[in-house]
Amino acid sequence: MTDSVAIPGYRYGDPSLPRAALTPADFDRLKAALLFRPEDVVALRRAGDVLVPQTEEILDVWYGFVASHDFLVAYFSGPDGPRSEYLARVRARFGRWIADTCRADYDDSWLAYQQEIGRRHFTGKNETDGAAASGAPPLVHFRYVNALIYPIYATVRPFLEKGGDDPVTVERMHQAWLKAVLLQVTLWAEAYVTRGAW
Amino acid sequence: MTDSVAIPGYRYGDPSLPRAALTPADFDRLKAALLFRPEDVVALRRAGDVLVPQTEEILDVWYGFVASHDFLVAYFSGPDGPRSEYLARVRARFGRWIADTCRADYDDSWLAYQQEIGRRHFTGKNETDGAAASGAPPLVHFRYVNALIYPIYATVRPFLEKGGDDPVTVERMHQAWLKAVLLQVTLWAEAYVTRGAW
Repeated sequence: MTDSVAIPGYRYGDPSLPRAALTPADFDRLKAALLFRPEDVVALRRAGDVLVPQTEEILDVWYGFVASHDFLVAYFSGPDGPRSEYLARVRARFGRWIADTCRADYDDSWLAYQQEIGRRHFTGKNETDGAAASGAPPLVHFRYVNALIYPIYATVRPFLEKGGDDPVTVERMHQAWLKAVLLQVTLWAEAYVTRGAW
Repeated sequence: MTDSVAIPGYRYGDPSLPRAALTPADFDRLKAALLFRPEDVVALRRAGDVLVPQTEEILDVWYGFVASHDFLVAYFSGPDGPRSEYLARVRARFGRWIADTCRADYDDSWLAYQQEIGRRHFTGKNETDGAAASGAPPLVHFRYVNALIYPIYATVRPFLEKGGDDPVTVERMHQAWLKAVLLQVTLWAEAYVTRGAW
């Protein structure tokens, strides 16, 4: 959680965030349903060693993907087109998210920040970066948040392979990454789902 | 769509289902966000040849997984415990779902049935099988629907390998299966998400 001051809107570890509504017991159940286990956290630690030094290259791939789909870049755009300052501010948090996904303690503080991230994709989307004034859409539609699990999963594979680990270890890291991304998006979904049905 | 008469509640191809709200253009965008491409449909066809003859063994694994987690089996249970008739009726549709995932045309008729499946997990959960009278919970919480993407993906791998295809083909089938499952759950999410935010 170092450097958090340097990233606008980054709040992992901020004690003033509301606690997550999910109880620790229900969080354990969710992890069990997803097969997210302690050995996945171990594999993610190694993935962090490999991926974090490649953060900018990974973000280039992801931003390239978004940029090549007008219906995705629209979420970062106003009437005059893409807002470069907004894109840059999100990029800083997105880069940090790669490190956090690999290194998080998956504890209460992390859960509270997931709740905040979910809220920011929906009802709180533009407040952090002043994007409302630029005419950016007021929310990211949930279907794209969930769908993007796949490219966010698939595109890290070549970056994981660059770490020089044996194929079994690469596969283990990749599976742990998929679980961690699916777990997070499932947590973010709470902001979108009808009360009581999440 | 043969044999549909034999499975209670199975409605793929039923012309009396309401059309999906999603437009064809938006469906294409969703598939693009998820990297779901024509070659995935080809890979799924081969996956169907391999998986469909193993349907009962796959369902045994999935039902074993549900049965080993009390918070999952609860969705099929009344005050007296698991409802075997309800479990059996869902099992017949779940088996058919394996075949449909591999062989569907991903067309308007398929989209309409996805909308119906989503509705059945939430507001329409117990109407099809008379499960309300047995005291089963009125909905499946969305977080488990989304989380189960992972085990539904991971557990088919050994079954795909039994088809004797080369490792590249097995991997291609497995990735296509993951995309198809994620695509479907993302469509089902529409029933759960606040209107206008899906």
